Amino acid sequence: VLNHQPTMLSDERSKASFDPKPLTHLLYGGKDRYEHVLRMRKLVDADPVLDVSDYYTSSRVDRFHRAMEKACHLVQLQRSKGLSEEDMRVLRSCVREEQPLALHWIMFMPTLASQGTKEQQEKWLKPAQKCHIIGTYAQTELGHGTYIRGLETTATFIPETDEFDIHSPTLTSTKWWPGSLGKTSTHCVVMARLILKGKDHGVHAFIVQLRDLRTHFPLPGITVGDIGDKMGYGTMDNGFLRFAHVRIPRDQLLMNYVRVDRDGNYSKPPHSKLSYGTMIHVRAFMVIDASNALKYGSTIAIRYSAVRKQSVLNPADGEHQILDYTNQQNQLFPLLAGAYALHFTGHRILKLYQELQKSLKQGDFAVLAETHATTSGLKSFVSAYASEGLEVCRKCCGGHGYSRFSGFPDFYGNYVPACTYEGENVVMSLQSARFLIKAYARVAQGHQVAGMVAYLMTPLPKKVALNSEKDALNADTLLLLLAARAHWAIQEAAHILQKHKNGHPADASNAAAVELVRAANAHCHYVVAKDFFDAVASPAIRNSQFAAPLVRLSQLFALSILEQNSGDLLEPGFVTSSQVKHLRTASRHLLGLIRPDAVALVDAFDLSDHFLNSSLGRKDGDVYADLYRRAQQAPLNKTEVTESVRKHLLPLMAQGRHLDSNGQLIPTTPAKL
Amino acid sequence: VLNHQPTMLSDERSKASFDPKPLTHLLYGGKDRYEHVLRMRKLVDADPVLDVSDYYTSSRVDRFHRAMEKACHLVQLQRSKGLSEEDMRVLRSCVREEQPLALHWIMFMPTLASQGTKEQQEKWLKPAQKCHIIGTYAQTELGHGTYIRGLETTATFIPETDEFDIHSPTLTSTKWWPGSLGKTSTHCVVMARLILKGKDHGVHAFIVQLRDLRTHFPLPGITVGDIGDKMGYGTMDNGFLRFAHVRIPRDQLLMNYVRVDRDGNYSKPPHSKLSYGTMIHVRAFMVIDASNALKYGSTIAIRYSAVRKQSVLNPADGEHQILDYTNQQNQLFPLLAGAYALHFTGHRILKLYQELQKSLKQGDFAVLAETHATTSGLKSFVSAYASEGLEVCRKCCGGHGYSRFSGFPDFYGNYVPACTYEGENVVMSLQSARFLIKAYARVAQGHQVAGMVAYLMTPLPKKVALNSEKDALNADTLLLLLAARAHWAIQEAAHILQKHKNGHPADASNAAAVELVRAANAHCHYVVAKDFFDAVASPAIRNSQFAAPLVRLSQLFALSILEQNSGDLLEPGFVTSSQVKHLRTASRHLLGLIRPDAVALVDAFDLSDHFLNSSLGRKDGDVYADLYRRAQQAPLNKTEVTESVRKHLLPLMAQGRHLDSNGQLIPTTPAKL
Ligand SMILES: Cc1cc2nc3c(=O)[nH]c(=O)nc-3n(C[C@H](O)[C@H](O)[C@H](O)COP(=O)(O)OP(=O)(O)OC[C@H]3O[C@@H](n4cnc5c(N)ncnc54)[C@H](O)[C@@H]3O)c2cc1C
Ligand SMILES: Cc1cc2nc3c(=O)[nH]c(=O)nc-3n(C[C@H](O)[C@H](O)[C@H](O)COP(=O)(O)OP(=O)(O)OC[C@H]3O[C@@H](n4cnc5c(N)ncnc54)[C@H](O)[C@@H]3O)c2cc1C
Ligand SMILES: [Ca+2]
Repeated sequence: VLNHQPTMLSDERSKASFDPKPLTHLLYGGKDRYEHVLRMRKLVDADPVLDVSDYYTSSRVDRFHRAMEKACHLVQLQRSKGLSEEDMRVLRSCVREEQPLALHWIMFMPTLASQGTKEQQEKWLKPAQKCHIIGTYAQTELGHGTYIRGLETTATFIPETDEFDIHSPTLTSTKWWPGSLGKTSTHCVVMARLILKGKDHGVHAFIVQLRDLRTHFPLPGITVGDIGDKMGYGTMDNGFLRFAHVRIPRDQLLMNYVRVDRDGNYSKPPHSKLSYGTMIHVRAFMVIDASNALKYGSTIAIRYSAVRKQSVLNPADGEHQILDYTNQQNQLFPLLAGAYALHFTGHRILKLYQELQKSLKQGDFAVLAETHATTSGLKSFVSAYASEGLEVCRKCCGGHGYSRFSGFPDFYGNYVPACTYEGENVVMSLQSARFLIKAYARVAQGHQVAGMVAYLMTPLPKKVALNSEKDALNADTLLLLLAARAHWAIQEAAHILQKHKNGHPADASNAAAVELVRAANAHCHYVVAKDFFDAVASPAIRNSQFAAPLVRLSQLFALSILEQNSGDLLEPGFVTSSQVKHLRTASRHLLGLIRPDAVALVDAFDLSDHFLNSSLGRKDGDVYADLYRRAQQAPLNKTEVTESVRKHLLPLMAQGRHLDSNGQLIPTTPAKL
Repeated sequence: VLNHQPTMLSDERSKASFDPKPLTHLLYGGKDRYEHVLRMRKLVDADPVLDVSDYYTSSRVDRFHRAMEKACHLVQLQRSKGLSEEDMRVLRSCVREEQPLALHWIMFMPTLASQGTKEQQEKWLKPAQKCHIIGTYAQTELGHGTYIRGLETTATFIPETDEFDIHSPTLTSTKWWPGSLGKTSTHCVVMARLILKGKDHGVHAFIVQLRDLRTHFPLPGITVGDIGDKMGYGTMDNGFLRFAHVRIPRDQLLMNYVRVDRDGNYSKPPHSKLSYGTMIHVRAFMVIDASNALKYGSTIAIRYSAVRKQSVLNPADGEHQILDYTNQQNQLFPLLAGAYALHFTGHRILKLYQELQKSLKQGDFAVLAETHATTSGLKSFVSAYASEGLEVCRKCCGGHGYSRFSGFPDFYGNYVPACTYEGENVVMSLQSARFLIKAYARVAQGHQVAGMVAYLMTPLPKKVALNSEKDALNADTLLLLLAARAHWAIQEAAHILQKHKNGHPADASNAAAVELVRAANAHCHYVVAKDFFDAVASPAIRNSQFAAPLVRLSQLFALSILEQNSGDLLEPGFVTSSQVKHLRTASRHLLGLIRPDAVALVDAFDLSDHFLNSSLGRKDGDVYADLYRRAQQAPLNKTEVTESVRKHLLPLMAQGRHLDSNGQLIPTTPAKL
């Protein structure tokens, strides 16, 4: 029975208008890079330690242990095979779920590298590079995450011994959430208030050893552990940490940017505030992560929708692939478009970051500030958009989407905290909006503004040339509408702030907060659509075989945003009712044009079966046999009569029951319960 | 340190404009019923078996076993304490997580009661009532859920032996998803195609014994098991089931509505098609479930938002409760309003159902058909709205919302399949829309239409009396706008269908599908808002102390829908841009008015701490100590040095590392990795 040979996907592939391979090369940054990825995937597929077949059957604790095994194994692989850093970066991206040491690489070492002095780097970064110590970064506390100035952990200088006394004075000062903290890290960068001679100098970074390197037991005065199960991230030991007057030498304050001398004097050499750079870098990756989340979701949902047949519309046709249903297309194709859109935005920002790093010329600071503000807003928009999109993709798979074997439940649980960490989304949008309001004010004062906010220098349109469905596909027209909407949304927020200008600025911004968030999102919609239109206009795409399908996706991305926010076009009078209808019919019409290429467009992402780890998203479309096969391995199927049934249910059923010699019920006379 | 005495919630309670207790009585259907609930809660709280402290630390398998223990224990309690059916209904609603036998009560027994003959009920329903057998209802297969006519399991009549041969001819015919099927049920109502003399009579219900009552092993020819882990419902053994030519006697076809005689002749006595009634009943409960989900989410998020302080707006004020932030209010208060709105809709439909059951008079059939269609749409709207709302509430709790101890991750995982089971949401909305289109056509032909679609008989408004923020709070005005929007959305869909009228009807409805779903949702928005306005206008509320806060919530509910869909008001020209602004300012203004009563409004739901099982939602507000206490019990904290760290990480760190006698690193000369 399991010998089921689905042909739907090969049929779809033969009908596509283009060969996905060249598009795959483009997405991976060229043929060479793609082939590098394939080589690393080979290593993964051949390696039994990295196998994912136990992924959906293990408890959280088992998952943690397996992930720890994988993480250590990867380091051993690097050593035994002499893999380069670039090999490792690619290899890690190919492996599903390897996290318990993540904070060591992405927070602990970079913090030491940027905030540690030469001597401190020699002392801590060197051994960290060799994994002789494992570290993390502990900022958030039980009581404070967003508001860093509210952190309560103290580091009080003790002149007598030339030490800092690190202390957790309250319950809410307990460090809470840092990854790799609970059971893994031996060391930690701790953010604590620097107290010198009774004066509070605010939050600074200290390096503190947490565990004995011989026994791995916590050092005296340190209480540390796992914060318990979460919605996802089962493989990460997010931890809690308390200090009871733990003493550390003075030179464990990270002193690249600040100094405390032997007498407890504080000095802060002036330095250009380039933490913007790091943030832009992190956020470029968050945009790429969001793109990857949508690539994951749309690959599974679109492949499954091509395999799944359900319901008859026209009896002559038999059952339809669910990908033929307009609502299915109207839910999935905009998200497929979003996966591409965010890909181009993420890589554009990454490139911009690298250029800014290279040459911080005079004019670049304005671009840097704008990019920082735009990426704050993007962090919020893309994480919300991609996480909501994942749930849409899952629901489009009907009942089977709810099975862990679909891949969605675990992926969503692991992805969705992107809305919360690295800056809570609402807070990020508000931060981004503050910049937009400032830019708006500068334009009002007759100044120029640079970068992505340049549209603020164009007056709002009185009317738009949009007289047909064809006009509604024009990139310039769509961008004009998206820019006008962003401009208008910023202006509306500015008007509310203006109305409250006699009160405290904070009260004004709270009064305008809903409109400020809307403005930040509208700005991001414009930015992402612009990046997508720019990408499809670039020679690499314009002259390719896949130009037409990508152009359609860029149009659909813009149209679906405009359609969902039609009120923001009608209210300022940019468009009329009949013009909105053109947008809507253009959008619907695109669905049918994209339909034949949908499978090829997700094939181009070339996510491996190992990474998808999904019965529904398999490249060969063998959905049902895979669900069946995986179910046989379910933990409850280890025994025919499961423990609690034997212990509780069988005795309950037997009470007052009479069976004949064949085990059949003997009817009883009616009895009261 | 854990002796933390938060006072924020008592401060909030003392500031409220009303005492929540009388509102609680109203929500529970009167003081007597509420006190009945309290008596059952006492039983729960006193019972160690029903304890929930292991809820967030157990694996899926352990959760299943605990839930089975609880389910059996409840039946034993009923027997030992002589509890009534009503006691049990209330008791079950008080217990968090008791599911493995759910299908026995909600599907198996009701199906036997409605579709079984007297003799069949005597034979199967009687023992089922006593739990001598446990049953479920198996309809969905690997290959078919939505499209029941596509089911593949066959029941072929064998005249020689007077039996049916039940068979699973293909992989996709495997029964898949039924609850309580995998490990629990001894019997099953199986939906299979009735084949008589080579003729396929479509899907019918058969009762089949699955497991031996002595050994609980599957009977010959039956393969049954658990389908594996899911996004939630870990306590339910959703199962798979295959038949290899299993023979059952002819009298195991449920024959209350159909007959197959000894010669294999089929007859179907005419009977009034009242399956509408059952569906309306199920969906009334789904609306109440959605209300409960929003009560759960808003209770936790609003209490936590009153306890959590984060960020300073105005340095003079110190840190703010996050409930003071406009975005927090604008996200949470509409959902709080939604919890109340769906409460009133659910109970209104339940009452209507009971009335329709009592007296199916001549005129009631039109109401029945309309109610069936409206509740199909509601099933879809409320499950999507409540599940998305749960995630909004969770994200409003920042980082701690992501902890399982918040309650949200488990609750969401268990609630969200409501979007999929009992009719996939898109399919339900389309079904509802088909009725709306028919009603629209009837009105166009000059007929009357009854019930909730009566607004179709009122012409679309040319303009609306909405000239101030005050007008924007007027219930009649808001309902007029919601009805006009629904009417317009139905008309738009009808126009698209009209345009395609020369093609196949199915192609037309696929072309209009997006607009049809929009129409169904717009209709539901109107219905729920109308129910809420009707409720607050009823004497029980109008003359109460809590009239003003509930009126505000009813206004906010309607305004937030209109604001989010302003395009649907502007496009048809019902309102102008300045009128939309009135809606928006009215909506924002309400937030500040609701703020002082927010905690009292969730207190009125009176969800028990046992049921909330949430560190963030505790009635006493002792959030941080509870998070800390629960974390100490986390499985990874059982040992200081966890297994995989000892096995994999410690050896990795030790490679090439040199420690001095105090366990401190000895610097090494730089080495290549
Ligand atoms: C999976 C995960 C991993 C993490 N990893 C780490 C780590 O490795 N290291 C580490 O130090 N931390 C880590 N964190 C913590 C994380 O950085 C914080 O949770 C995050 O910054 C959000 O802060 P919060 O929890 O204080 O949310 P809060 O600020 O309490 O947010 C709650 C609500 O209040 C609102 N709010 C707060 N302030 C304002 C304001 N000024 N204006 C308007 N609204 C406001 C928010 O919008 C939100 O709705 C992690 C968290 C998670 C979930
Ligand atoms: C937790 C859970 C418990 C369950 N319990 C039971 C149980 O006890 N007993 C039982 O028998 N079953 C049960 N089920 C199965 C459930 O009833 C089905 O999963 C549900 O009916 C959805 O059907 P499907 O899975 O075939 O979805 P599909 O129909 O395959 O849906 C996939 C997609 O196709 C689209 N689609 C399908 N048909 C159409 C159409 N005609 N027009 C437009 N779009 C369409 C849908 O909108 C959806 O986006 C359960 C499922 C779950 C998740
Ligand atoms: Ca909208």
